Amino acid sequence: MTQHTPAAQRAPVDLRSDTVTHPTEAMYERMRAAPIGDDGLDGDPTVRELEAHVAASLGKDAGLFVPSCTMANLLAVLAQTQRNEQVVLESAAHMYTSERGAATFTGLFYLGVAGTDGAMDLGRLEEALLTGGHRLKTSLVAMETSHNNAGGTVLPLDHMQAVHGMASAVGAAVHLDGARLFNAAVALGVAPGDIARHADTVSLCLSKGLSAPVGAVLAGGAPVMARARVLRRMLGGTQRQSGIMAAAGLEGVRTMGGRLAEDHVRARRLSDGLNRLAPALSATVPQTNIVQVETAASGMNNAQWVAALQAAGLLARPWGRTRLRCVTHRHIRDEDIDAAVLAFETVLNRH
Amino acid sequence: MTQHTPAAQRAPVDLRSDTVTHPTEAMYERMRAAPIGDDGLDGDPTVRELEAHVAASLGKDAGLFVPSCTMANLLAVLAQTQRNEQVVLESAAHMYTSERGAATFTGLFYLGVAGTDGAMDLGRLEEALLTGGHRLKTSLVAMETSHNNAGGTVLPLDHMQAVHGMASAVGAAVHLDGARLFNAAVALGVAPGDIARHADTVSLCLSKGLSAPVGAVLAGGAPVMARARVLRRMLGGTQRQSGIMAAAGLEGVRTMGGRLAEDHVRARRLSDGLNRLAPALSATVPQTNIVQVETAASGMNNAQWVAALQAAGLLARPWGRTRLRCVTHRHIRDEDIDAAVLAFETVLNRH
Amino acid sequence: MTQHTPAAQRAPVDLRSDTVTHPTEAMYERMRAAPIGDDGLDGDPTVRELEAHVAASLGKDAGLFVPSCTMANLLAVLAQTQRNEQVVLESAAHMYTSERGAATFTGLFYLGVAGTDGAMDLGRLEEALLTGGHRLKTSLVAMETSHNNAGGTVLPLDHMQAVHGMASAVGAAVHLDGARLFNAAVALGVAPGDIARHADTVSLCLSKGLSAPVGAVLAGGAPVMARARVLRRMLGGTQRQSGIMAAAGLEGVRTMGGRLAEDHVRARRLSDGLNRLAPALSATVPQTNIVQVETAASGMNNAQWVAALQAAGLLARPWGRTRLRCVTHRHIRDEDIDAAVLAFETVLNRH
Amino acid sequence: MTQHTPAAQRAPVDLRSDTVTHPTEAMYERMRAAPIGDDGLDGDPTVRELEAHVAASLGKDAGLFVPSCTMANLLAVLAQTQRNEQVVLESAAHMYTSERGAATFTGLFYLGVAGTDGAMDLGRLEEALLTGGHRLKTSLVAMETSHNNAGGTVLPLDHMQAVHGMASAVGAAVHLDGARLFNAAVALGVAPGDIARHADTVSLCLSKGLSAPVGAVLAGGAPVMARARVLRRMLGGTQRQSGIMAAAGLEGVRTMGGRLAEDHVRARRLSDGLNRLAPALSATVPQTNIVQVETAASGMNNAQWVAALQAAGLLARPWGRTRLRCVTHRHIRDEDIDAAVLAFETVLNRH
Repeated sequence: MTQHTPAAQRAPVDLRSDTVTHPTEAMYERMRAAPIGDDGLDGDPTVRELEAHVAASLGKDAGLFVPSCTMANLLAVLAQTQRNEQVVLESAAHMYTSERGAATFTGLFYLGVAGTDGAMDLGRLEEALLTGGHRLKTSLVAMETSHNNAGGTVLPLDHMQAVHGMASAVGAAVHLDGARLFNAAVALGVAPGDIARHADTVSLCLSKGLSAPVGAVLAGGAPVMARARVLRRMLGGTQRQSGIMAAAGLEGVRTMGGRLAEDHVRARRLSDGLNRLAPALSATVPQTNIVQVETAASGMNNAQWVAALQAAGLLARPWGRTRLRCVTHRHIRDEDIDAAVLAFETVLNRH
Repeated sequence: MTQHTPAAQRAPVDLRSDTVTHPTEAMYERMRAAPIGDDGLDGDPTVRELEAHVAASLGKDAGLFVPSCTMANLLAVLAQTQRNEQVVLESAAHMYTSERGAATFTGLFYLGVAGTDGAMDLGRLEEALLTGGHRLKTSLVAMETSHNNAGGTVLPLDHMQAVHGMASAVGAAVHLDGARLFNAAVALGVAPGDIARHADTVSLCLSKGLSAPVGAVLAGGAPVMARARVLRRMLGGTQRQSGIMAAAGLEGVRTMGGRLAEDHVRARRLSDGLNRLAPALSATVPQTNIVQVETAASGMNNAQWVAALQAAGLLARPWGRTRLRCVTHRHIRDEDIDAAVLAFETVLNRH
Repeated sequence: MTQHTPAAQRAPVDLRSDTVTHPTEAMYERMRAAPIGDDGLDGDPTVRELEAHVAASLGKDAGLFVPSCTMANLLAVLAQTQRNEQVVLESAAHMYTSERGAATFTGLFYLGVAGTDGAMDLGRLEEALLTGGHRLKTSLVAMETSHNNAGGTVLPLDHMQAVHGMASAVGAAVHLDGARLFNAAVALGVAPGDIARHADTVSLCLSKGLSAPVGAVLAGGAPVMARARVLRRMLGGTQRQSGIMAAAGLEGVRTMGGRLAEDHVRARRLSDGLNRLAPALSATVPQTNIVQVETAASGMNNAQWVAALQAAGLLARPWGRTRLRCVTHRHIRDEDIDAAVLAFETVLNRH
Repeated sequence: MTQHTPAAQRAPVDLRSDTVTHPTEAMYERMRAAPIGDDGLDGDPTVRELEAHVAASLGKDAGLFVPSCTMANLLAVLAQTQRNEQVVLESAAHMYTSERGAATFTGLFYLGVAGTDGAMDLGRLEEALLTGGHRLKTSLVAMETSHNNAGGTVLPLDHMQAVHGMASAVGAAVHLDGARLFNAAVALGVAPGDIARHADTVSLCLSKGLSAPVGAVLAGGAPVMARARVLRRMLGGTQRQSGIMAAAGLEGVRTMGGRLAEDHVRARRLSDGLNRLAPALSATVPQTNIVQVETAASGMNNAQWVAALQAAGLLARPWGRTRLRCVTHRHIRDEDIDAAVLAFETVLNRH
């Protein structure tokens, strides 16, 4: 059995992120064969095809292929706001915690609203949206699903609808950070467009579970996307024969969404395995492909855990001070999950 | 002969830009075979190889692979300045005329200094660098070679040295927009590093004459590049399995520089052919691969020229109000040049 | 007795803010007599005297006279940070809640940290100051004492010392929003400089309890203040014969600090009077000159309260959704406090 | 005669700027008597009176009292633009040369257009306003009259009308930096409103020739001014009992405009006197109250001139590298002009 091979002799099980996924063979073939043009000049046909495909599947007017989901989110903000206004988002959202560098280029105030499982508290949101007095105008509200920092949780559709309604009532647009939108759709058993309808703009990352090497797509209404296209050039996000990359993305959005269900099952297998190691460890019960492991009761700190797991053949990421994050993806098989659980157990036994 | 084939039946001769170049077969092969990693996590080996190769060849500490030369230039500015300071550059530089959108994200004042053939007037530069009074501190001076808007002219090395000296004397860093640095090196008969030594940071575009599909590299000193790496993430320029793209870039910087001499010869062939159509047209005598064609004496305006040339099988770009720009590149053969001259002649005759 | 005069016939008791205070007769005399110069040219002697006086009394190298405390705080931020960095401050601080418009000009991320009575939770602060990963560098931590939104609470000096130490440990400067610094000093029974020593820069508002018509002073170390002086001009805060205004400020800082104790006593008198109206109302027990009145149990909303109190001869400000803010100052005598309590009682009785 | 008194025993003649003017006795009286309020709360009656008076006299909907003309200009820009757009102005305009620090807070690109006597070349302006391609949208065009750096020149009204028309044609607003608008009006023999009609917003400095100690007024259409009012608070330009300062400004705009004609006559007297010292010196022939003195032929540099003139009892400012600027104002009498000319002559003779 795999787990009997000494860890040092096997490639480690890499649960750090679904961004580590390599392109599929079909993606390489499409990259080689894709018709290309100059997307900085009069356009690239494969880029256009990807943009149109994603826009259609999300029920939006237009799409824009960009180098990363961070840029997609930044463009969504820039294209739907003016300076000296306010963006409101859940205070554990990736855009708030990890993309705050992007915020510093916007001339906007980012206001975090506390939430549960990635869903903003609606009472606090209402307060954040108040106008009058010295308050800044809120021009954009952002949501994230599945929600990375909350452990891959999925926003209920009625929550999204409520937020959209509250934002619209004060004239604010709604952006959805859909870096892992397909995971959320699989978890809810709906089409991605059924989620995307609760936002004016949606970003979709191609290089996470969908396994394309790079890139993301921003989709939204025509006027907003026209502004985003101009802003993309300003930020240096416009590329030339980018159809090569778009080809892999097209393959991803067309064929890789369905298999994400497997990742979710394996995440649950991991969670179950780890929770058998209680009380030293406790793992979140995953809605999608992310498991957070609380290690506070183990007597080891985060850095010790990461190092010890690596020695035992498992790569995981520290998350906050006492947690680790494990993410399943298409390179992870059932036996890798079992090896991962064994690695945790081994570290606990040695400690 | 090729030019006797009716224009409508041939693919048009595309002289709009050297950015239209497709990857070579060798590039496609390298893209397929490149070892890859996650450049947003612990790095991508092929990206690292490209960054190290370019840094070494330009005599700099470190390199950074970015989605476009516009982003490379923007990062060079951000990493070497603080807000509320001044950037000084030649007033026809691409960074001043076409990348001014990027400037709006920097919190800096961009001051254009008039020049000749892309070289700033040194007296005006001295004035621009004055300190004291209500003047902003100049933290960066930027140059461009070969110089796009000046018609592909190459900055003399002693000019670059003088600018570097003047900038250093007031504590300002120097950035070189080397989008077409290899063309400049070929024209001067020196190595790219012999030019790059007159700047603290250098950007190099991979997707112009070097024919890679996308991307650019910024190179410079270690502390500046460390800041640029952090800023790249903020702007959304950090990608995942970007080694696939870097592989094409590596092939480009290793093998495509030498052949640029051919493009320069053909640009001269084009210029000579067009100047035989004087006085209706006059073409600049190119130092590299760019020819500007003055059409004011022809009695047709720019838009008319572009349309008429397209009908005659030639794609060129309007440049200012009465000029056209033609750029040679690896898809352009001698017979394409002759076809291009014929297209101009045909338009003149029909008019 | 005053309170028996019908409200409509008396000037209303104005507890909206201590900013409503008019200059004293002595201030008017000083304004008339002050030697003046051109502070935008080679300086104004009275401005210099004010700046030196405040700097000395706060134990700092230098002072800068500015149009408002909002600008003093903004300059403190700009002068001690670079763009793309982070400012950390208590999430109810005036700089976070009411001056967030200023934040949008800085290219910085403002991170709010929850606290109690205006004092940041130190565990959360420690987390906010973490470095590494994708985290922004925190370049400034800001505190506020007395703390407006917390109800005029005063930060304990050991808390300030702890925050200063934690900030220094990560290379961050500390700014103190001392809009009501003199009130805090009176409450603690220490000199303003004993508080100011726990911050690198301190702003002091001249037009609140100190009763000068306009202006504030920022004080700090020499290099930071030199930068702030340059930035003041950029923002349009440099004025000409501003010694006239500085003269009133000088009179304020020299003579008006001591009498703030009276305002604190009267705020307590107000609080005691209102708490006798429990449970319909409950008032905070003031440390300084601010009383917050919770009206949720009264069955009237905030807008109704403000209107009803005004009809009863009392001006108060809505604070959040269910609170009112009352601030004592030098125009408020004991009988005004009694009238204010009576006004609340009258409204309750009528309701 | 005055000029026979040794310079060291007299107060120097101060021609550095009209900003050195002290308030008149009447201004001091108005400052003492003005009704005041809290302009940060529900308003100050004297501020409102000043704002209404200036707005009416300039034919605009509303006015806004601000601490300085630099802030007035900055607010005009912020209130009429969005980020990532372009401001076009004459390249020697004060807003371009001396207020470029303000520009760094706007997220805009400031494009300077060369001109003559402060008037933009209309052909170059047309080019600057071109749209399409990678060009930024121009949202604001700014003019300045009288024009400080051009030597107090006054823009012809038909030039202003032409610029306004060209700007409007591309949807750009027009701002007039009227720091010395009243001087321009006197020179043209028209009312200030006759000039102001060629701009959407106008700034007016109160502390130059009008002699108020501090402050400026921005005037314009109602929606723009509402935005400017909000932005003023963000920048820290909102003050409390600012009616005291506004009172001096009101006196200035009501009574001090007419006497500027005297300053213009004296500037001409100075120019005539200095031109009699040709060829060592040559002075511009002033349209208003500013004379520029070219010293290049004198064999002394600027710093030497400023020092030598100061020793001879005259204060002047260096202007560029070889010029001095002299400005007349209400403290300068005919005999001061004669003393100034004598000072120049004395320096020349001693050299």
